[in-house]
Amino acid sequence: MVDALVLDDAVETVRLMLGQERLDDAVEYIRSIHPADAAEVLARLTPEERLPILRRLSPEELAHALDRMDEDDMAAIARQMGHDRLVDVLERMEPDAAADLLGEMPEDEQATLLADMADADEVAPLLEYPPDTAGGIMNRVGPMLRRHMTVAEALEFLRQHYKDERELYYLYVLDRHGRLVGVVSLRGLILADPDRRVEEIMNPEVITVRADMDQEEVARLLARYDFLALPVVDEENRLLGIVTVDDVLDVLEEEATEDIYRLAQVSERSQVFSPVRQALANRLPWLVVNLFTAFLASGVVSLFEETIARAAVLATFMPIVAGQGGNAGTQTMTIMVRSLALGELDTRDMWRALRYELLIGLLNGLAVGTLVGLVAWAWKANPMLGAVIALAMIGNMLAAAAAGVVVPLTLKVLRVDPALASSIFVTTVTDVCGFFFFLGLGSAVLL
Amino acid sequence: MVDALVLDDAVETVRLMLGQERLDDAVEYIRSIHPADAAEVLARLTPEERLPILRRLSPEELAHALDRMDEDDMAAIARQMGHDRLVDVLERMEPDAAADLLGEMPEDEQATLLADMADADEVAPLLEYPPDTAGGIMNRVGPMLRRHMTVAEALEFLRQHYKDERELYYLYVLDRHGRLVGVVSLRGLILADPDRRVEEIMNPEVITVRADMDQEEVARLLARYDFLALPVVDEENRLLGIVTVDDVLDVLEEEATEDIYRLAQVSERSQVFSPVRQALANRLPWLVVNLFTAFLASGVVSLFEETIARAAVLATFMPIVAGQGGNAGTQTMTIMVRSLALGELDTRDMWRALRYELLIGLLNGLAVGTLVGLVAWAWKANPMLGAVIALAMIGNMLAAAAAGVVVPLTLKVLRVDPALASSIFVTTVTDVCGFFFFLGLGSAVLL
Repeated sequence: MVDALVLDDAVETVRLMLGQERLDDAVEYIRSIHPADAAEVLARLTPEERLPILRRLSPEELAHALDRMDEDDMAAIARQMGHDRLVDVLERMEPDAAADLLGEMPEDEQATLLADMADADEVAPLLEYPPDTAGGIMNRVGPMLRRHMTVAEALEFLRQHYKDERELYYLYVLDRHGRLVGVVSLRGLILADPDRRVEEIMNPEVITVRADMDQEEVARLLARYDFLALPVVDEENRLLGIVTVDDVLDVLEEEATEDIYRLAQVSERSQVFSPVRQALANRLPWLVVNLFTAFLASGVVSLFEETIARAAVLATFMPIVAGQGGNAGTQTMTIMVRSLALGELDTRDMWRALRYELLIGLLNGLAVGTLVGLVAWAWKANPMLGAVIALAMIGNMLAAAAAGVVVPLTLKVLRVDPALASSIFVTTVTDVCGFFFFLGLGSAVLL
Repeated sequence: MVDALVLDDAVETVRLMLGQERLDDAVEYIRSIHPADAAEVLARLTPEERLPILRRLSPEELAHALDRMDEDDMAAIARQMGHDRLVDVLERMEPDAAADLLGEMPEDEQATLLADMADADEVAPLLEYPPDTAGGIMNRVGPMLRRHMTVAEALEFLRQHYKDERELYYLYVLDRHGRLVGVVSLRGLILADPDRRVEEIMNPEVITVRADMDQEEVARLLARYDFLALPVVDEENRLLGIVTVDDVLDVLEEEATEDIYRLAQVSERSQVFSPVRQALANRLPWLVVNLFTAFLASGVVSLFEETIARAAVLATFMPIVAGQGGNAGTQTMTIMVRSLALGELDTRDMWRALRYELLIGLLNGLAVGTLVGLVAWAWKANPMLGAVIALAMIGNMLAAAAAGVVVPLTLKVLRVDPALASSIFVTTVTDVCGFFFFLGLGSAVLL
């Protein structure tokens, strides 16, 4: 019936209209597309391009667009609005999105905005929790069912209280103290005999999460059980809100991006075409940290300068020994980091993983070492050189395997994200060991 | 009310029971936990550990567990069952999960199983589509509403036809030719006046996808619009099935894992503790491919062996110039690859990205080059050496930026997954250029 919009085309269309000074057309076009698409298009325009459009959209329209943006984009657009207009928009946003936006602001600005918002009491409680916890991503829930209602009463209750909800996931049932005692699906309610009581058809075994649970753990739980929403409760089991599957999709994307960027040693805030100053802040510190570890490797090579002066052929093979070790270490480390993130590996498995990876490292080392040794022998007509390289390669593969297991699992035990710092330590080990084994053996055997 | 099960503890519990030969207790325990947890526990046990448990579980229980496993785990367990038992289990599985499992089998085995299955006609059509397309991940849909039904008739229709569905997402409305003409949410149906017609309350602008759309694209669409399901249609707009949000969660996890593994140059089929033979197949080919590129870098160094023999200090700084280039290239490449995957970057942006990254590369090069140059000068008391390193570093950062942009975007244009091969090409460029700039300049200036 309707194909989804191609976002690049939509952005081009708006740019074309703006270029031809057809501002009215551009605004009409933005109004005509799905709010999710309007949000994406606004986020992709430059601040100068979108400013005149923002001025023409109603607070209602802006609120719908902001509801669907990620925090960085929301904040960039909010900075282009005056205080009063921003208050108007915040009041019309979904409370959880409004809380995300306020969370991006400096504390004093947050306080002034909240002071002027009519519905501050719906938003302020959501700001109590860190943004990457269940409490930080949860949504407000509407009035809940009571256990003694009949099915017919419950349906009537929904008709009265749920007119404005965008989606209805599950219906939670509370006791007289506001504690969660069960859950019913809308489907269950419709299919049930209208005279039965809610407590007869509800499922009393509700899986709940606490407000301070890490968002990634919440996301994995919801994915594991194929739920559409998970209730968030306090210590007394009172319902605070729900985390819904659309939020969880965003969390999993965000966490995967974070791991990918951290493994590549750039800040997880990286985005294509960030302002230059931001891009340097995202990347340069990592390059400098790596520089210190590279100097460690250099220090090892420096110890053998005399050897290299007498057998410069060793320099030729340095990149191979260190490079292969780095690749093998990265392979092991990445499998460990991802398996930890997916909950498929536990720190209790350290010894088993170490034994397993040392075996793989030995076999890889024998295969690659033999191959490189033979090539070196043939190329430089020097069998001893081949033997030195082969042995150094096997040693470095074992070091790579050990570092690839021990570094991420140790970081996990220390409650540091293994994706964050593993690469640096692993490549330091493989560079230092690789050069030391290779040049050390070379000094002993070839001179 | 109920905290989610800690899977590691559950696996330990079962192992303990098996170790004490309390097989009945182990089977009872597996029956007592949520089917999603039972699936995870069975998947994590070794084939020998789980065999006696599999024998005790009913086909119904096995089907519920298999419904919730990923393809590899399903297939491993299916291989432990005889033909007749597997047919019994397949008949009780959800058709889309049964199709996934059959898709893992050799064609002849698939055909014999289908021939013996009573409900083969529900499963066979799902096997027509490649597993990584909308058609491959879609679920069957039950009977649909018609546009002329009243709301009251529609609710009665649901009570009759939807007794057995696990979840009900949206209600799709068909015309007399079976073509999709609208969608209603269950919530919309409950809240509407019972005498109105379905076509008056339905949303006629349904966003649909074709059966051959790539699963990742489907997943991103559903996430972008915050839908719970997307309808899959044929060329005539007839409804073939739906892709649901729980499948999309799995797809996004799978695709993120694939990108992470491919960027680290291991097969995306990698798993912690795969059989050794499988682990070698997942890793060794990548190491060997990298070996050829490492030999290219070695070849460059080899050209300068005489220079190195006379100024062995150059060898000391080789790891730094190449290493920093590799890190910077990986940063740029990773941001490109992830932004392409998230749909935030388009191949049309190649030139803009190239200009932007060359600027960042230049600034990073100036910063890091100056720093390393000064350290080299101070360490080896040789200002010319410092100058050579600084210049080579700047040159290599520019090469890294260019490779980091051009390689992934070119692969994308060629319809190769940029995550798959970018790392190899980028590090080849940074190694070769790094050594060439550094040793070339060194020969010219220092000798």
